[in-house]
Amino acid sequence: MKALFLGLFAFAPLVAGAASPPPAGAGAWIDLTHAFSAETIYWPTSDPFVQETVFAGRTEKGFFYTARKFSASEHGGTHLDAPIHFAEGRQHADELPLDRLIGPAVCVDVSGPCLANRDYQIAVGDLEAWEKKHGAIPDGAIVLLHTGYGRFWPNRKDYLGTDLRGPAGVAALSFPGLAPAAAEWLVQHRQIRAIGLDTASIDHGKSDKFESHVVLLNRNIPVFENVAHLDRLPPRGAQVIALPMKIKGGSGGPLRIVAWVPAK
Amino acid sequence: MKALFLGLFAFAPLVAGAASPPPAGAGAWIDLTHAFSAETIYWPTSDPFVQETVFAGRTEKGFFYTARKFSASEHGGTHLDAPIHFAEGRQHADELPLDRLIGPAVCVDVSGPCLANRDYQIAVGDLEAWEKKHGAIPDGAIVLLHTGYGRFWPNRKDYLGTDLRGPAGVAALSFPGLAPAAAEWLVQHRQIRAIGLDTASIDHGKSDKFESHVVLLNRNIPVFENVAHLDRLPPRGAQVIALPMKIKGGSGGPLRIVAWVPAK
Repeated sequence: MKALFLGLFAFAPLVAGAASPPPAGAGAWIDLTHAFSAETIYWPTSDPFVQETVFAGRTEKGFFYTARKFSASEHGGTHLDAPIHFAEGRQHADELPLDRLIGPAVCVDVSGPCLANRDYQIAVGDLEAWEKKHGAIPDGAIVLLHTGYGRFWPNRKDYLGTDLRGPAGVAALSFPGLAPAAAEWLVQHRQIRAIGLDTASIDHGKSDKFESHVVLLNRNIPVFENVAHLDRLPPRGAQVIALPMKIKGGSGGPLRIVAWVPAK
Repeated sequence: MKALFLGLFAFAPLVAGAASPPPAGAGAWIDLTHAFSAETIYWPTSDPFVQETVFAGRTEKGFFYTARKFSASEHGGTHLDAPIHFAEGRQHADELPLDRLIGPAVCVDVSGPCLANRDYQIAVGDLEAWEKKHGAIPDGAIVLLHTGYGRFWPNRKDYLGTDLRGPAGVAALSFPGLAPAAAEWLVQHRQIRAIGLDTASIDHGKSDKFESHVVLLNRNIPVFENVAHLDRLPPRGAQVIALPMKIKGGSGGPLRIVAWVPAK
């Protein structure tokens, strides 16, 4: 049982076993997750979310009963990119320690430049500007990039820049993301737990080498994509709990991500 | 934004908007979730969990990439029963408020009688005996029933009582559950947030009317099934966060359930 009780270092998260609980006190949970349905946005080349009703109604024994089944690609809707998605030999979805997924959030508002330019790449300067106002990104932070594109969900054309499917859809993608140099700056100069944003990919839509994915996932830093409602988070002070479906060997999967927002 | 800040009543959970954060301090997160794989146990008549690799390896552009897809029934593995599963007009998976899913846990050890009798039904007397030792089940508790059957996972024959599939498998089910009278006692005399256990169903395997499901789900009390590692929870003092996949209109679905266990 000893391993359970290493949490004294509650905010020194990158030590194995350390743990960050949300603070007690007044506040509320908010849901940063889009619901899965036929409208859920997937990558233009991915299979969509499909639901099928197995039974719904009164059974012959007289009781009411509903059950369904579904199929999905691992990367669509509000989801996790596990390190193995782009980094050979790194962690699968079920191998991420909970301590990587639960911690204090910082929310960086880059909606100005991102809404002005669909192909904007969030730069080191954007992170430095945030730090100048709000202080250094703390060790163990879950960094959430608020591009403003969450407001377009579930309109594919506005959200992805195209409603085409297949390779033609991939070629026409146009949405903002994190510049590879900024990803590199985060892993070199800050100690973050995880990162997420309100677009379909941490690399911008025009990327064809996915370098920000590679930089982050190589360090076992999980990436959360299609995160919802980032407009509701304060720049700092929220606590995030991001629990992915525990798929053995998964490259990612559906994510339920919530935040504790303390009362002011 | 006002609705976000009703959390002052942090432990009066059945009021809309009230919220229960885990306490700060020393402790650790533990995972109460079985990973999803081809071994995952589903009901004998349900489709199993199926994974398929879409791509794994080096792409022609030189970077490494892995992606998969999967299909699953809503009720299998560690999962949620949403109220609509057995209660007409009640909440779907995506409609459950977060406040129903996050709160203080009590863990009732009934492994003695359950391991002695596969068809045991957890009785009002078992709950009363727990209360005599540990105090009344607090308002807003997430009640977890520790039958001891989690140790048999993923062996179907030991866990379900049978490894047959289809209707013959259903007829041969044999595992413990909550007696309908005890479910009724909980909804009449206690104010619980949610309930869970380490078997495949809140009703025992021999049930054919699923009355405990009906009693609980009619009150919009979510049920967590196939919960893992309940032997690791203290009788009280843990905090549970149970985040189901957010399936629109879902009757349930994959659940990631974790607990904060404070240091002694």
